[in-house]
Amino acid sequence: MTADSAFVIRGLSGAAQRAGLTLTVLIECDTGAHRCGVQSPQEAAELARLIKQLPNLHFGGLMTYPTSEQTDNFVRETRALIAEDGLQIERVSGGGTPVMWQVHEHAEITEHRAGIYVYGDRLTLRSGAVTLDTCALKVHTTVVSRPTSERGILDAGSKSLSSDLHGLDGHGYICEYPDAKIYSLSEEHGHVDFSACERKPKIGERVTVIPNHCCTVTSLFDEVVGARGDQVVVVWKVNARSTVW
Amino acid sequence: MTADSAFVIRGLSGAAQRAGLTLTVLIECDTGAHRCGVQSPQEAAELARLIKQLPNLHFGGLMTYPTSEQTDNFVRETRALIAEDGLQIERVSGGGTPVMWQVHEHAEITEHRAGIYVYGDRLTLRSGAVTLDTCALKVHTTVVSRPTSERGILDAGSKSLSSDLHGLDGHGYICEYPDAKIYSLSEEHGHVDFSACERKPKIGERVTVIPNHCCTVTSLFDEVVGARGDQVVVVWKVNARSTVW
Repeated sequence: MTADSAFVIRGLSGAAQRAGLTLTVLIECDTGAHRCGVQSPQEAAELARLIKQLPNLHFGGLMTYPTSEQTDNFVRETRALIAEDGLQIERVSGGGTPVMWQVHEHAEITEHRAGIYVYGDRLTLRSGAVTLDTCALKVHTTVVSRPTSERGILDAGSKSLSSDLHGLDGHGYICEYPDAKIYSLSEEHGHVDFSACERKPKIGERVTVIPNHCCTVTSLFDEVVGARGDQVVVVWKVNARSTVW
Repeated sequence: MTADSAFVIRGLSGAAQRAGLTLTVLIECDTGAHRCGVQSPQEAAELARLIKQLPNLHFGGLMTYPTSEQTDNFVRETRALIAEDGLQIERVSGGGTPVMWQVHEHAEITEHRAGIYVYGDRLTLRSGAVTLDTCALKVHTTVVSRPTSERGILDAGSKSLSSDLHGLDGHGYICEYPDAKIYSLSEEHGHVDFSACERKPKIGERVTVIPNHCCTVTSLFDEVVGARGDQVVVVWKVNARSTVW
């Protein structure tokens, strides 16, 4: 459990009391990612003391998305500030797949949460954290229209590939046509420019797409089919779909 | 049923025969939207003749996303070409919510498919086809973090609001904070700049967001809750979710 405000920490304490549980709470720190998180070691120390004071809570350490040496300095300063209160930082949880091979450079990080790593996607290919042959998540789709000699339409659009770009050019990598570009999406259609491909697909041809971002794509399907080669070995239900609250 | 190729029309005929049904098929025509669709009245006429020849199919007319006067001309030329084959264009189906108040300007369109119109969204607000008080689809979300005095984090990200931009600035309109900007999304978080707002929200405050594009957002939820004022009057299950194939 993480928190970055007294409001949420008080809420967690109340809920933990009602449930008769003790919750371990990590303080989320903004060390450069500019998402959630307290802005300074002083704020982190203040919340650590609050966690210590409130019933049914245990201070577990810090959580962050590590960026630069700023991250290690943030942890060290917080440690110094809370030492006099008898508080220790048991755990410093970092995260982010693109930076996972650089985790060892952060001396203070004790664990790393790498979510995309489970599958890999086009974002992770760009960062170099996975390679094409280790990228596991693919969307199988069919060429349903070839309106012109250069243009093709897939039956996978923003409801299958999501519209996530994160600075990438195009909406996915077509394994069979590496030079093709999925230049736009409507909900059920991927619009593809095949002009750079020597061979062009026929209508009815199945192609496999590595999507830009596996997190949002997984959330768009009810099931993920696990295969080794041509052999289906497992079908996973996507349990947390749409239950994002 | 629509088609824009001989391949798909032959497939429809085969499937209709096996099912013992007669299918009415409209030919999709690209009259400027550059999505699917045949490129010329000549191609449309050729496919209309094929539909007439094949068993268990009935030629129903044309389907398109109307753009300019090009659309009417396309229909007229196709009509002239197939008249000698004894074929009539019974129906010309147009679509697109942003242009729905201009449909009467297309003399040849006989029906209009307006999907977004059911709900309205930020795209439709931009086009002027709906107003704020007639925009029905809203995502209810909570301010879960206020890392700085200007920044706030909502518990709605790309898995709730989708990443669709379609040229819009920001990822949704916050009804309670019209001057706020949802400047980026992670999967479960909306990152909001409240600097232009006189009043700033507290952690725990609920806000309602009109998303950029209701089509992709509906597909991200299991249920849509219908309310009049504060009264919930209906809960609809989103049936076609994830069954986009």
